[in-house]
This record gives sequence, structure tokens and C-alpha cells, in this order.
Amino acid sequence: MSEQKYAIGVDFGTESGRAALVDVADGRVLATSVHAYSNGVIDETLPGTDIRLEPDWALQDPADYVAVFQNAIPAVLAESGVDPATVIGIGIDFTACTMLPTLSDGTPLCFLPQWRQNPHAWVKLWKHHAAQPEANLLNERARAAGFGDILDRYGGKISSEWFIPKSWQILIEAPEVYAAADRLIEAADWVVWQLTGIETRNSCTAGYKAMWSKQDGFPPNEFFAALDPRLEHFVDEKMSREIMPLGAKAGELTEKAAAWTGLKTGTAVAVANVDAHVAVPAATVSEPGRMVIIMGTSNCHMVLGEEATTVPGMCGVVEDGIIADLPGFEAGQSCVGDHFAWFVENCVPASYEQEAEAEGLGIHELLEARAAALKPGESGLLALDWWNGNRSVLVDVDLTGLLLGATLATRPEEIYRALIEATAFGTRMIVETFQANGVPIHEIIGTGGLPNRNRLLMQIYADVTGLPIFVAEAEQIGALGSAMHGAVAAGAAAGGYDSIVEASQKMARLRDDRYLPIPEHQAVYDQLYAEYAILHDYFGRGENDVMKRLKSLKAGVKAGSQGAG
Amino acid sequence: MSEQKYAIGVDFGTESGRAALVDVADGRVLATSVHAYSNGVIDETLPGTDIRLEPDWALQDPADYVAVFQNAIPAVLAESGVDPATVIGIGIDFTACTMLPTLSDGTPLCFLPQWRQNPHAWVKLWKHHAAQPEANLLNERARAAGFGDILDRYGGKISSEWFIPKSWQILIEAPEVYAAADRLIEAADWVVWQLTGIETRNSCTAGYKAMWSKQDGFPPNEFFAALDPRLEHFVDEKMSREIMPLGAKAGELTEKAAAWTGLKTGTAVAVANVDAHVAVPAATVSEPGRMVIIMGTSNCHMVLGEEATTVPGMCGVVEDGIIADLPGFEAGQSCVGDHFAWFVENCVPASYEQEAEAEGLGIHELLEARAAALKPGESGLLALDWWNGNRSVLVDVDLTGLLLGATLATRPEEIYRALIEATAFGTRMIVETFQANGVPIHEIIGTGGLPNRNRLLMQIYADVTGLPIFVAEAEQIGALGSAMHGAVAAGAAAGGYDSIVEASQKMARLRDDRYLPIPEHQAVYDQLYAEYAILHDYFGRGENDVMKRLKSLKAGVKAGSQGAG
Repeated sequence: MSEQKYAIGVDFGTESGRAALVDVADGRVLATSVHAYSNGVIDETLPGTDIRLEPDWALQDPADYVAVFQNAIPAVLAESGVDPATVIGIGIDFTACTMLPTLSDGTPLCFLPQWRQNPHAWVKLWKHHAAQPEANLLNERARAAGFGDILDRYGGKISSEWFIPKSWQILIEAPEVYAAADRLIEAADWVVWQLTGIETRNSCTAGYKAMWSKQDGFPPNEFFAALDPRLEHFVDEKMSREIMPLGAKAGELTEKAAAWTGLKTGTAVAVANVDAHVAVPAATVSEPGRMVIIMGTSNCHMVLGEEATTVPGMCGVVEDGIIADLPGFEAGQSCVGDHFAWFVENCVPASYEQEAEAEGLGIHELLEARAAALKPGESGLLALDWWNGNRSVLVDVDLTGLLLGATLATRPEEIYRALIEATAFGTRMIVETFQANGVPIHEIIGTGGLPNRNRLLMQIYADVTGLPIFVAEAEQIGALGSAMHGAVAAGAAAGGYDSIVEASQKMARLRDDRYLPIPEHQAVYDQLYAEYAILHDYFGRGENDVMKRLKSLKAGVKAGSQGAG
Repeated sequence: MSEQKYAIGVDFGTESGRAALVDVADGRVLATSVHAYSNGVIDETLPGTDIRLEPDWALQDPADYVAVFQNAIPAVLAESGVDPATVIGIGIDFTACTMLPTLSDGTPLCFLPQWRQNPHAWVKLWKHHAAQPEANLLNERARAAGFGDILDRYGGKISSEWFIPKSWQILIEAPEVYAAADRLIEAADWVVWQLTGIETRNSCTAGYKAMWSKQDGFPPNEFFAALDPRLEHFVDEKMSREIMPLGAKAGELTEKAAAWTGLKTGTAVAVANVDAHVAVPAATVSEPGRMVIIMGTSNCHMVLGEEATTVPGMCGVVEDGIIADLPGFEAGQSCVGDHFAWFVENCVPASYEQEAEAEGLGIHELLEARAAALKPGESGLLALDWWNGNRSVLVDVDLTGLLLGATLATRPEEIYRALIEATAFGTRMIVETFQANGVPIHEIIGTGGLPNRNRLLMQIYADVTGLPIFVAEAEQIGALGSAMHGAVAAGAAAGGYDSIVEASQKMARLRDDRYLPIPEHQAVYDQLYAEYAILHDYFGRGENDVMKRLKSLKAGVKAGSQGAG
């Protein structure tokens, strides 16, 4: 047996970065370490200044990312006692689209005194929503200029969270920052640049966030010119047309980065990943037919297809977007764990909190126990899971929540269960839309926070979709997936693997427990889903746009009250 | 100036009876006294037995009514110090339809040892709902036999709470009790019988609860025969065709009743009234155009018309039903105060209760204060007020509640306000349906518990309906109205009045404060009401019967689970 080899994955989240040191042979995690960003999410004032940010802004400090390398990697080395020489590769994953302007050598503009006080010089975090006007303009002008087919790869609309609206916002609001930026780059690629000294761009963020496709590359210059003449040469001026597939090696650890981390100079570094997408092989999936759902505050659905095809209402289809050489499809639900959190915070009476305390339960646990005692259909309730709009398949942020069927006997646990069921119906709508468009799905693998916390939810998802649901074993799925990519960057010759498929087979596992559909529940949920689908289309496809009219009325009233105040 | 005269009103509620001693000159209340029914609402076991009642049953003990006369009237005489000789009349009002079987001398069957253990021998309270099968059969068979026009006077459907279904239930389930009953009579009329020794029947319960009309009398024998051959001569065998108008004198106090009450033998006694309807003249209304709404757990809307006409979806139109010689229209909303109580019990988080306590407020007060700080339309929410079905104008108990427009930013006070608004939209729907069918309404008078407790609700009703809303001054509106009828039974010659119109003008008053529509609120509510009306028709008039399908699924699931248990 050859010497044991290790890989390190670093998962960059919204508030912190987490490193995991993993055994390459079997994916076992020997040590993990979390390092919180000292500036966290910057959404009030710019660090070290009194400069206030507008409400929809969300920035980060790139120095915080480097600090993760400097702290979390030495910590896992120390905790595990592993010899750095046996760490053969390192991979990272990141939130996306999280992007920043830099000089040609990778120096972030916000590190420079002359730009440090300009908010546009900082990292725009994925949930920076202030580029909505640019997103709206993009969708309007691109379609008018005949580029609707490109938009349709992304469900018909580009999100304000994505790369081009964010870049365009810099150009419009801070043309001097835009001009000073030699590069606009995903933070995912930027941290790899810091490790390797080499600028690379990964196919996942390029595809899902910056409209790149393996077949056609980026949209043509005419597309960008149609948005804004100043954007005509956007790709060549600010980005790169060289896009590397996931699993490739970006470069090797520089001496400087080796000093930060305690790893050896020359250690293989993988091309950057996105947190959600790197979870797919870490959840054992490297082939079509098995959908991975990251279930947390929101749901992110990922599935590999056999051929690239346009599925209406999805977040995108990208070849090489998840696994090299296969089209990766992504869909989403914008309100899942957030939904239950909202309910608990706003709708659960004091008597329930007292009872939970008396029984030594969390409030979610109490609600789950009570909701689990109900049979499907017993509450008479039905909800539309649109408290935060609908990401897939309607792609409409202006839709809102609906609860129907309440009586004076309706109890909190019934509403709680109806909200869970609504998110399950939303997932079934996504699954069926994929299936109807030639993307097979025959099982679901859940990962993220919810599968570990809410068995009722998992069973309801199985009963509603009619699919068996498995749960990925790894708790830190992003870090494991990144470590797998590190092992592949190193290659089989160095003790790693030559493909993500192989790494997935060896390093990823499912739990023993699984959730199988219960036929009598399915029979009831089929009826409820049929009702859900009628309401979904009635309110979501234009027959009754009451939700939008109410939102617009609300906006008008609020604007009026601001004017009066 | 002549000697001061007084009248006594006795208001029989669900749990107790209340007497008020009133100055005939100006309606001033000198004393009130409440006497609780010792057997209350009988819905578990028959008093003095182990006989269990079925879930939908609700009975009362007629001895409890007599005890109200024996206790509450002496109490108001003692408290006021008024000379019984100056009490010129007594009137009563009652819940309806609350009915019982008696012998020809008025003895309730449940007073007789041989019937005392039979639940059907007792009083069936208004909320006894076990005659639903008979109500369903009645609606079906009467329409099939060509009597649909009579049903249409009552919104198209006879309620299980009403007189004929309750009587028929006795016949079907206890034919021996039915056979032994010389009379079936409203408790309202029965207590008047106890005071006067004379059996009378009032036009209000006959009209609203027993399908009588001044023009046509009761439905013909063929109607009853179509229900059940044994019912063919129902009216002649068990009731009476002699129906007395409201405001008439039923008789005079017997020696026995004088001894119970401490009043003088021969004191005038008015024909019985119903609690809701007697409130109309007590709220200053004795002419068309001004709608009285009793606002409490549910809303009861009453308005006088110029001519009897069928208004779709109302609870009934009865000439002499409220004021002699005018058609009285009644409509209802089955979930108003109950709605807010449900919300507070099931949906208000602990943090709100803590804050209310800290601020020394009731939880309703805290919610009202927060909801009042919102502008119309600001929440983006819209609800259908059907948590307890829809009484008017859809007459459909199987409709259920709906809340639309929720987001992750939705707060409890926003939902609370949306529920209030929904009941206001329901009232506007009733008002507009009356207006569209030739029943003018140009102002609203509120009475009952809510107008005293919730100023926000009153303003919202004004803003939504676009009508000025006044509030009746009397807190015990039923007892005042009954006392007014006692004064009319006595007549002007005895120091009372010759008509209810006159009594109303002298004895009833409105408060000084009023609620006027605020034009900018009206403008927003006109838009929200238009949305409400679309959803009202979509879910309520058959376009999408999802609420009924969910209810039926729920019933099936529950039946299944009982079968399994």
C-alpha cells in the first residue's frame, strides 16, 4: 500500500471560510477549521470610513479571504498532525457571483489608497442586489437586440446577482473605478490566483454567472454593445476568453502562498469551483439521472444531463458547469429554510415556545413532531412557496406567498407542515419540468443543513416527488468537494485521481438511511399537487397578476409615505 | 310633567340572561343584572344523567330561562329602587332559532319524568348543528319539488340551525318525542308564554327561522309533504298560523310571573324578539337606508327596505321581521371577532406578548396600535375572510380562508390588519349586493362588542365601504331594544309609546364620535377591493373549487384515520 495522501478543500462562505483536510483514499475528513471574515458582510458602512452603503449593497474585503488561507489551513495541518509533504492538492469553492476589480497583477483596487474609499472598488458579494436596474436593462436590451436565445439558457432572465449586471453597475456608477480595473474577476478565481500567481477562470462561474458557454464562448461583442457602447469589448478588456474546465489544475502553490499555509511550494491547486456545484460529486453524483439538492435557507437543484438542452425556467445549463464534458443544469427555490425561520419568528404563539422549553425541544423540533403526527391532506391547507418570489420555474421575484384552506380550527403545526409541503411541490414542479424536457431524474440526493435537521421534510419530499431520497454523508460537503478537486488537480501519478468521476466514486458516500415514497401518502399528494399546479399557473403565469399588482401598490404607498415624511 | 315610567328588557344570551331597567322617557339604563344559566350550554352529557351527546349537539334547560326572570328582574328593581308600579312594560329577546317541544299548556317535555332522559325533549340551542342532514335533505327535496323560490328568499339555502330542520330531526330520530309534543316553539315565544300564560308566535323568528312570510304565510302543506309525508300537517299540528308583529302586546303578566319578578300583575308584555333584530331600533334605526351591523364574534347586518325583494345570498327578507310593516333584510359574516381571536391564539409570537406585557397593553391593543401605523396597501397582503365559511353573499360553509401576498418581511401586525380588511371587504360585498338589488344603504351603525374595542377596525370599515359609520350608544343593545318593545306593548296611554318608530326616536341614541371615510384610504381600498372581488368570485363561484376539494380530501383522510384507529 502506498503512502497515505491528503488533499485540502477550502469552502468560502458568506461569513467565514472553512478548510478541511481529507484522506484522498476514502474521503475521510481528518480535521476542519473555520475562520470568520473580520469584516464579514459589509452592508452598512465601508470599513474604516463613515461612508454609508445603499440598502441593497453587500460587499466583502478580499483580505479576509487570504486570512482564511493563513489561519484555517495551518489549523487543519496542526490538528491532524499530517505531514504537509503528503498533502498533494488543494481546491477551493466560493459563493458566486462574488466579484471584484483588480489591477493586472491581481491587486484588488480596494487595497489601493486612491480607491479604498470607493465602494465600487470592493468585492461585490453574491447577495449585493443593487445592480437590479442594470439587470432589467440587460434583459430588455439583449432581447430587443435579438439575443433572447442566450437569455433563454438562463430561464429567460439574467439575475441582478450575476457578473455582467454587477460589472455594468461599476461602469455606470463609478466609471473611474471601471477604467482603473484591469480585470474584473470572480473571487473564486481571484483566491486561486493568490495561491498560484496565475490568473485562471473556471467554467462554472463563467457559464452560470457570466453567460459563457463551452460551444459559443461569451456572447458576441454586439451583445455587449447593445447594452452599452462602452461595454462592447468588455470580455477582452476586463475578463479572459480562456476558461478552464472543473477538475483541471490551475497551477501550483507559490512560495508566498506556501508560507501562508504551511503547505509545500508546488502543491497542485485546482481550478476554482462554486460552493453549490462542487457539492454534486461530493454527494456521489457524476452521472445523469440523480439530482442533488442543497437544502438550506434556499434550495439549489443540480442535475447532469446527457445533452445540453434548454429547459424553461431554470437558472442555467452549462457544459463543464458541474462535471467536465457533461451539461450541468441548475434550478432553485428562493425560500425554503428561510420560510420556516420566518414562520417560527412571526407566527408561533408563546404557548408553543413554552411547551418546547418544558419538553426540552427546539421550537422547530416541537413543530416537526406535531406536524409529523398529521396525515397528508388532514389540515386542508395548501400553500404557494413564494414568500421570496419564485426562482424556478417561473423566474419571477415579484410573486408572493399564498396560504389557502385555513379555518378557525387551523393550528400552527398545520401551517408549518403546509409550508414544508409547498416547498416540496415547488421541487416536484422543477423535477417534472426537467423530465418533460428530456433531462431524466430518478432519484434525489439531499445535502446541506435541512437533511440533517428535519426528517419530516425529507419524507414529505419523497412522498411528494415520488422519488427515493438519499442523503450525502459529508457534513462539510463544499470542503470535501473542493478537496476532491485538489486530488484531481494533483493527478493519479501523485497519488490523487485523474478525474472527478473517479474521485467521486472513491471519496464520496451516501448515508445508510434513505427516504422512500409511501404509496398512500403519494396518492394524497398527487391530488394536492394537482391543486398546487392549478394555483401555480393561475397566479404565476399571468391569469391573475394580483400578486404583482399588490406589490406595485405597496411600492407606490411606501414611496408616497417617504415623500410625505 | 307626568310621573316617570320604566320598562324592563330581558336579553337571553347563550350562557346567561340579562335584565335592564330603562327610563321610558329617554332610554337611560338605571340598572342591569345578569343571571347565568345553571346548566349553561349542554353539549356533553344530559343533566343528571350519564347520557352523552353527539359532537354537534347543543341543548339548554328551559328552567334556566325562568330563573332569569326570578333573579335578574328583582335585582334591577332592587338596584334602581324603582317602584314596580311605575314599570309599565316588559319585553324580551332571545337567541334564535332556539326551540323546544312542549305540551299544549306550555310544559316543556324535558320537565316530564318520562321524557327527561331523551335529549330530543330538551331545548335545541341556536348552535345545535346536528340537523345538518335534515337541512341538506330539505334544500334538495324542496327545490326538486318546485319550491326553490321560497328557498331563494333565504339566500337559496335553509340552515341546519333553523326551525324546520331541527323539528324534522326530532321526528326522524325520536318520533315518540315528536308525537308527544303538542307544540314545537321558539324559546323566545315560550318565555313570553311563561310570563303571560298565552301562547304567541312572533313574526321575526317565524319569518327568519321558520320560512313564514307575511304575504304567503308558511310554505304550503305540499312543501312539508315533499320533505317527509309525516310532516304534511306540521304547521297545524305543532305550530300556529297566528303570527304577531313585533311591537305588539302579547299579553299581561300573570299572577305567577308577577310573583317571580316582583312586578305587578297585568304589566304589559311584548311579543318576543330576536337578539340581533331587536338591536336595530335600539341603534336608532327604524327606516330604510341605514344598515345596522352587530359586530362581534360574527357580523350580523340588518337593514330595512322599502319593498320586499329577493337579494341573492342573504340570510332572509321578512316583512315585519325587524320593524312592523317594513321588509327587514338580514345578512351575515360568520367570522369576524372569531377571526382575530384565532389569529391571536395561533399566530402571535411570544415576543409580541412580552412587549404587550411590558407596555401594559392587551395583545389585541398592541396589534391594533402596530397595525394602525400601517397605511392601506402597505403590507401587500390580501385575505379572503372565509375562515368559518361564507354566510353572505355566497352562502357556502365549505369555503375556507386565504392569505395572499406574504413575503419574508411580512410581520404579524400586517396579517392582523389584512384579516380586519378582509372582513371589511366582505361587508362591502354585502352592502353592494343590497344596493345593486334595490335596497338603499347610505350609512352604517355599528353595535356589539367590536365598535367599543377596536377603533382601527371601525375606520377601516368606513374607508373600505366608503360609508360613514356611527356607533350606537347603548352597551346592552338587546336589553334596551327589548325594553323599548315593552314600552310599546304598554302603549302611549300607559306612558309608553304607540310605535317602535316613536320609541326608537326617544329612547335610542348614537354616540358623538363617528368614522368618516378618508379619501386617500378609499382610493387604495377601491383597488384592493377590486382584487378581493376577483378572488372572491374565482374561489367562491365555482371557477376553482379547490377549497371544497381540500375539505373533502381532509374529511376523507380523517375518516380513513378513524377507520384505522
